[in-house]
Amino acid sequence: MKSLDVVTFGETMVLFQPDAQLPLEYVHKFQKQIGGAESNMAIGLQRLGHRVGWFSKLGSDPFGRYVLQTIRGEGVDTSACLFTDEAPTSVFFKEMRSSDAVNVFYYRKNGSASLLKPEDLDEAYISQAKILHLTGITPALSNSCLETVFAAINIAKQHGLKIVFDPNIRMKLWGKEKAKAVLQEIASYADVILPGLDEGKFIIGKTTPEEIASAFIQRGNQTVIIKLGSKGAFYQTAYESGYVEGFKVNHVVDPVGAGDGFAAGIISGILRNESLQETVRKGNAIGAMVVGVNGDMEGLPRMEEVESFMNQTSEKRDVIR
Amino acid sequence: MKSLDVVTFGETMVLFQPDAQLPLEYVHKFQKQIGGAESNMAIGLQRLGHRVGWFSKLGSDPFGRYVLQTIRGEGVDTSACLFTDEAPTSVFFKEMRSSDAVNVFYYRKNGSASLLKPEDLDEAYISQAKILHLTGITPALSNSCLETVFAAINIAKQHGLKIVFDPNIRMKLWGKEKAKAVLQEIASYADVILPGLDEGKFIIGKTTPEEIASAFIQRGNQTVIIKLGSKGAFYQTAYESGYVEGFKVNHVVDPVGAGDGFAAGIISGILRNESLQETVRKGNAIGAMVVGVNGDMEGLPRMEEVESFMNQTSEKRDVIR
Amino acid sequence: MKSLDVVTFGETMVLFQPDAQLPLEYVHKFQKQIGGAESNMAIGLQRLGHRVGWFSKLGSDPFGRYVLQTIRGEGVDTSACLFTDEAPTSVFFKEMRSSDAVNVFYYRKNGSASLLKPEDLDEAYISQAKILHLTGITPALSNSCLETVFAAINIAKQHGLKIVFDPNIRMKLWGKEKAKAVLQEIASYADVILPGLDEGKFIIGKTTPEEIASAFIQRGNQTVIIKLGSKGAFYQTAYESGYVEGFKVNHVVDPVGAGDGFAAGIISGILRNESLQETVRKGNAIGAMVVGVNGDMEGLPRMEEVESFMNQTSEKRDVIR
Amino acid sequence: MKSLDVVTFGETMVLFQPDAQLPLEYVHKFQKQIGGAESNMAIGLQRLGHRVGWFSKLGSDPFGRYVLQTIRGEGVDTSACLFTDEAPTSVFFKEMRSSDAVNVFYYRKNGSASLLKPEDLDEAYISQAKILHLTGITPALSNSCLETVFAAINIAKQHGLKIVFDPNIRMKLWGKEKAKAVLQEIASYADVILPGLDEGKFIIGKTTPEEIASAFIQRGNQTVIIKLGSKGAFYQTAYESGYVEGFKVNHVVDPVGAGDGFAAGIISGILRNESLQETVRKGNAIGAMVVGVNGDMEGLPRMEEVESFMNQTSEKRDVIR
Amino acid sequence: MKSLDVVTFGETMVLFQPDAQLPLEYVHKFQKQIGGAESNMAIGLQRLGHRVGWFSKLGSDPFGRYVLQTIRGEGVDTSACLFTDEAPTSVFFKEMRSSDAVNVFYYRKNGSASLLKPEDLDEAYISQAKILHLTGITPALSNSCLETVFAAINIAKQHGLKIVFDPNIRMKLWGKEKAKAVLQEIASYADVILPGLDEGKFIIGKTTPEEIASAFIQRGNQTVIIKLGSKGAFYQTAYESGYVEGFKVNHVVDPVGAGDGFAAGIISGILRNESLQETVRKGNAIGAMVVGVNGDMEGLPRMEEVESFMNQTSEKRDVIR
Amino acid sequence: MKSLDVVTFGETMVLFQPDAQLPLEYVHKFQKQIGGAESNMAIGLQRLGHRVGWFSKLGSDPFGRYVLQTIRGEGVDTSACLFTDEAPTSVFFKEMRSSDAVNVFYYRKNGSASLLKPEDLDEAYISQAKILHLTGITPALSNSCLETVFAAINIAKQHGLKIVFDPNIRMKLWGKEKAKAVLQEIASYADVILPGLDEGKFIIGKTTPEEIASAFIQRGNQTVIIKLGSKGAFYQTAYESGYVEGFKVNHVVDPVGAGDGFAAGIISGILRNESLQETVRKGNAIGAMVVGVNGDMEGLPRMEEVESFMNQTSEKRDVIR
Repeated sequence: MKSLDVVTFGETMVLFQPDAQLPLEYVHKFQKQIGGAESNMAIGLQRLGHRVGWFSKLGSDPFGRYVLQTIRGEGVDTSACLFTDEAPTSVFFKEMRSSDAVNVFYYRKNGSASLLKPEDLDEAYISQAKILHLTGITPALSNSCLETVFAAINIAKQHGLKIVFDPNIRMKLWGKEKAKAVLQEIASYADVILPGLDEGKFIIGKTTPEEIASAFIQRGNQTVIIKLGSKGAFYQTAYESGYVEGFKVNHVVDPVGAGDGFAAGIISGILRNESLQETVRKGNAIGAMVVGVNGDMEGLPRMEEVESFMNQTSEKRDVIR
Repeated sequence: MKSLDVVTFGETMVLFQPDAQLPLEYVHKFQKQIGGAESNMAIGLQRLGHRVGWFSKLGSDPFGRYVLQTIRGEGVDTSACLFTDEAPTSVFFKEMRSSDAVNVFYYRKNGSASLLKPEDLDEAYISQAKILHLTGITPALSNSCLETVFAAINIAKQHGLKIVFDPNIRMKLWGKEKAKAVLQEIASYADVILPGLDEGKFIIGKTTPEEIASAFIQRGNQTVIIKLGSKGAFYQTAYESGYVEGFKVNHVVDPVGAGDGFAAGIISGILRNESLQETVRKGNAIGAMVVGVNGDMEGLPRMEEVESFMNQTSEKRDVIR
Repeated sequence: MKSLDVVTFGETMVLFQPDAQLPLEYVHKFQKQIGGAESNMAIGLQRLGHRVGWFSKLGSDPFGRYVLQTIRGEGVDTSACLFTDEAPTSVFFKEMRSSDAVNVFYYRKNGSASLLKPEDLDEAYISQAKILHLTGITPALSNSCLETVFAAINIAKQHGLKIVFDPNIRMKLWGKEKAKAVLQEIASYADVILPGLDEGKFIIGKTTPEEIASAFIQRGNQTVIIKLGSKGAFYQTAYESGYVEGFKVNHVVDPVGAGDGFAAGIISGILRNESLQETVRKGNAIGAMVVGVNGDMEGLPRMEEVESFMNQTSEKRDVIR
Repeated sequence: MKSLDVVTFGETMVLFQPDAQLPLEYVHKFQKQIGGAESNMAIGLQRLGHRVGWFSKLGSDPFGRYVLQTIRGEGVDTSACLFTDEAPTSVFFKEMRSSDAVNVFYYRKNGSASLLKPEDLDEAYISQAKILHLTGITPALSNSCLETVFAAINIAKQHGLKIVFDPNIRMKLWGKEKAKAVLQEIASYADVILPGLDEGKFIIGKTTPEEIASAFIQRGNQTVIIKLGSKGAFYQTAYESGYVEGFKVNHVVDPVGAGDGFAAGIISGILRNESLQETVRKGNAIGAMVVGVNGDMEGLPRMEEVESFMNQTSEKRDVIR
Repeated sequence: MKSLDVVTFGETMVLFQPDAQLPLEYVHKFQKQIGGAESNMAIGLQRLGHRVGWFSKLGSDPFGRYVLQTIRGEGVDTSACLFTDEAPTSVFFKEMRSSDAVNVFYYRKNGSASLLKPEDLDEAYISQAKILHLTGITPALSNSCLETVFAAINIAKQHGLKIVFDPNIRMKLWGKEKAKAVLQEIASYADVILPGLDEGKFIIGKTTPEEIASAFIQRGNQTVIIKLGSKGAFYQTAYESGYVEGFKVNHVVDPVGAGDGFAAGIISGILRNESLQETVRKGNAIGAMVVGVNGDMEGLPRMEEVESFMNQTSEKRDVIR
Repeated sequence: MKSLDVVTFGETMVLFQPDAQLPLEYVHKFQKQIGGAESNMAIGLQRLGHRVGWFSKLGSDPFGRYVLQTIRGEGVDTSACLFTDEAPTSVFFKEMRSSDAVNVFYYRKNGSASLLKPEDLDEAYISQAKILHLTGITPALSNSCLETVFAAINIAKQHGLKIVFDPNIRMKLWGKEKAKAVLQEIASYADVILPGLDEGKFIIGKTTPEEIASAFIQRGNQTVIIKLGSKGAFYQTAYESGYVEGFKVNHVVDPVGAGDGFAAGIISGILRNESLQETVRKGNAIGAMVVGVNGDMEGLPRMEEVESFMNQTSEKRDVIR
């Protein structure tokens, strides 16, 4: 029996959150947290009851230890995580000028995760899992990271892992041309692909959810789920397709992490062999729950919370005392 | 002449307020405040210009001193307050996962207030007042607390105090059956009863404000005022009844304490012999003012502020410089 | 060539901002900032690319140094700023009971700026500028300040500086009668006057924007621009007049400083010889940008930000990563 | 029977404590507390088990309410406290450049307490007490304050109150000549006088503790106690005199408030008719306890703590768990 | 092969650390941490490179999750940890009146860990380890906890685990008589016992380190190590004995956790078969390192840090930039 | 006449200061400040009354603006400062494990300042100054920085500027061999060199202050001043030499910045043509003053403070009220 359900890898950085909604030059205090799409997904999936492994290459420094402690503390398997003395753990700063204008400032160029290389991959570790989860961030970090992604795909194919690909395009990290070519190639190996509408347009060059999904299906993907923000999502396979409406969110507190929670919900549905429609509905629910809570991963729900939310989302929970 | 207008008693705890809207496991810092329905009412009533006595049994510890200092600092008479070495002052933690989901975690089982017993009551002290204010929280704390409530009712009846009863049901503290039986019995001694709509349903088993109020009146209560949240309140006596519309609140910041402010407004109206309609309108105004300010008791208004609010509530106060 | 575009002077105080939305007696921590209408305008104008001089009389104390460092740090010329040992730098405290109720508590009576006197003016310094900016706050601080304002007007007139007058009425500082008389007189010397609607009513005794503006024009002002809050502004000269609609603001975070930003926009337009309509539109844009950011001067935009805002204000900027 | 042991009056201000040991221009956050020599003494004495009344004239503003709430919360009788709309409650800022260099910046000129005048005194209230406590700060605030001090002395003399005078010289508040003349005159009415060594030198013009004390005794004071800092104190009456050694303090955290605690200890000893030597020893003990705790009044001990400290001061209390 | 080196269990609580050195009633803000002797030891030992399992019974609440996340994050195996709905995770508050006076206030009576009972023990899990670590805290929590300790001893004896017993006497939790009897009995089963000098006196009734150690040896313990604070430690077996001097600590920041770090050092030495003298020296080093860092477990060193400290302790590490 | 006294350049970074003395992985909050040896010296010198220019290449980002605002706010001329879009403003984090163990973590590799290149130098700007101040940090940042240092030396030589060189060796930034060769070469151009004892040993290969100084003098330097920490400094020229004792520091709060303050004192003495002994004494005084205050540049004194400190350093300044 497989000892892990899912394995994922990628850069998790230390995030410095400003304590005031001001241009960053006027912010005096910052709060340390972690930020990383793959670890968000891993933590989200672990909370839904699955066994998840995550790894990266961290700096042998206090910030690297902090990233490890946080993710391991959440119950994710971190036994394959690597450390290096050659580069520091990356950091980034969030700026919130107003509730509508969020910006990020990265110190991740030549960071520890960019040193990941194909030889770092532990084939035995990866082959324990049923699913390999990949994002489009990792190949943008460095050439060796790009090679590592393809090496991981290779291992996955050899050992029968499904590949779930969440494009997560970060234009700040690489050029448009290279991004498009690489993401297309990774997409071509994915069993399941989870683009946002703009991401789908960018990769495949079509416009509507239906067109984008059909194009991916024609290129060989089994399942395509296109995220449509507050409107929900559109899914398509060779056999079925449809829209699943999003859950109403009273007040969006922090949109970051919603896509990672969505991915966790989708993978959970796949692992539980739920219907695609139900799977997408769960992804939508988690996305909606995450945006109502501050923090990237703090608001990721446990399974009983997801179920409770899906049943009674329109009712307001009062102070219970 | 009576030297106090109102006497009340019950548990006031130290409240630890999280400094971030996050699941509690992710909150790093907490702010110390106090929380207690009876002391909120007492402070609210004192600010309206009345002489109020409050007491409890506090732990002989820094937190007990803090509760005493805070309530005494507000001008409430605390000379009958008791201290014990046998149990600590209770504490509780608030969790604000999002603006819609507030939860509390109590450490009040076997706390100092639960040791209150009939012998602790100072008959001479209570008999100085015109009104005894009771909540449904105290009888839920322990059997000796329950007995103390009935002993206080007895003293009130002997010395001609009116009894105002605010059910304040806390389901976390006791079983449904016992709660119902005890609250019904306390209600039967009250001159004035101030249930919320759900509380009225729970105690008396009816559905509409009119039915609930009529049922209480038939059981012998003089005055019934049913709180309807943002919609205002419904009042009924043997001679009159009616709805009083609520004041519009632009932005609910913190709903806790609104019911206690409402009770303070009602008791103030009774003490000033104002018409019941005007009395309920004042209760509504205070409730509306409290929800617009953070904190349980910080937002309780002074009389001139209530009057100013009632006259011009729809106008926005600009920055005055 | 003139080495400064604009010179302005007036009291900048240290502002203590509460760290919680509570009545001030319940606030534990305060954050130090600066507050001053003239320095806000100066900083705003400097960010738009102009050379601005600001001066005041500050106390020879740490708070005076802080005010100087902050304004100088922003690139405003402070070389004419004076210091005194005879009075402390003024301070004030903001109270935010709720988002609708902001109040201020001044400790500025007999503060250092109130000691400004005509002899303090450096004629050579002022005469370097093209425009003298005045507010109605300075003459309210003391008799010597009032005389200083008229002495500055005199210098401006002698050296051919335009005078831009922003009434900024502070009723807490002086009596109604005196205020009206003085502001009328200052207004009579202004080339450009920027009253709010209520300010216009108070000074000139008319009701509609058109009536107010006409009255000023008849009294000899060249340009009148009447601020209408979220509705925009009305402008009038001898030759043209019109309304310019305001920009939509999603969420007003902090209204303070909007008028000062508006003034900076207007003066920038004048210095660049832009059309009056375009000038007012820029003033509106800056006002709208400022209210969306916390702080009085922190949210004042740089020119490229203003242009970007004016072009795409209705679109929401996403998290850019 | 007298219903109060001691009455005192004087200015209590809101103190803003910096959150960092830095020149004040570089401190971002400040914590609100109260500061006032007379209220420190009153709180200290109340904790030792006596009934104490304190009053001042406070501003009708949030800071005035805060001062009142804090002192009343400590159990001091504040029923004679006055409020005014004519001036604000004074504030001051502490600067801690280093642990050796503390400075204060007052905003107390023309503050509410400076408006105290003889007519404000409630003769009936003062006459309830056995002892009137005075400091040399109040007469320095304004002429009407100076007159109020002498009016209070007059009431005390008429009603048989002892006068305890603690010079507390604040050179920042008045001229040397006037200070000397006034303090000499107040001293001449005092039964007990508690100068520091430098204060004694300043008022009476002698050098050693013995000389200073003898001079005061010759001028008619009953009891003179000269504070010698860490070395303890020297006392003298017509009948006895001597040195009482100070208690060893491991680490001075905050020296402010030590003199006020000393005064509370002395007055407590007088009220309990303890020997002068024991009285001074208690004063020394409280002074030593106060300097080991942050805050002006927070560290003032309760009687059982004083006794425990006097018995076992050299032993270190371990963590008790 | 054994898959764990050491297993330990006991209550870990959420600790609220005051943000100011003040009597607790005057502290406004508290910082959340964890506190628990057994988990401190477990974390310390894990950092030294060993495989450690820790378990407790935690409340199914956010604080229980926080305790689990923190300990698991440190790499300790928590797979045997239990959760309950029947009682909350215990909390406690630290008071630091001064650097010499620390006090704690527990809310742990009837907390979740007190519900631990013999049936909760997982024999298979415990039997994986080479050493069982016990403290004298657990048997003081409740009768079922006491029984659980003896049941664990029984399992250890059956499966050949060594028992290391660290008395950690908490007099606040139980009566003197019962404490003495129980601790004596647990001690009788221990292979290694690590009392402080006072603890040794209390349990065995002797005075000097030599006498205490001899008495334990005669009662059958293999190894006795008596902690002597800054003076180091005394060890004795049937074959050898001696004093090992302590390391000099420049500035004791926080003494809590030193004993747990000492225990971790001792157990590490045992697991590595180092000489007893070297083992005790390592325990001393870790104890000295822990008291120089704030926090109970944050300062526990990694092995390379211990070695570096033991080699160069007298030299001062400069700022390395 | 020269319009600047001194010009300096080099990297100033944003420094994130932990809010707790803990290993960095356990610190939650960080405070933003600036850190840079050259800007510290520039600010220090400006406070002593001189006209100083500083420049660097900053990122066109909020952190770059913050660095500029802070240094400009202090009155240093920043008109030659450059901005780039090609690299971010560098940041670094301080770790304070204990008061004895401070560590820094840089994110300055490929930062904006490392892009400084000879063409960036403004010959006209530099030639306005009498003295060029250089540190050994800048040549370690990149090859183009190294070339820039030599280009600046060239300009200085052409325009008759004196060169003051403060080695400030940062071993984390470059290899030992290269460091030694480069620093030797820069030293060879310096009129005045200010090494610490270890720096002198490293550069010139001698042991005692006298030997090191003589070696530099023989290589052609005019003045050598060797910093000896708390012991003061040794100076030597062709004509005189001697030791100047350091000032006693009661409590070292933060040693960072002391060397930069020392350099400011030396340069001030040179500019004022004071005797070398007096100059070194002033450097010692400033160094001693800086280490008693938190922060790198906050504690740099104004001239009148230096003089007051030099006159009365052994007396303790009391609370002045």
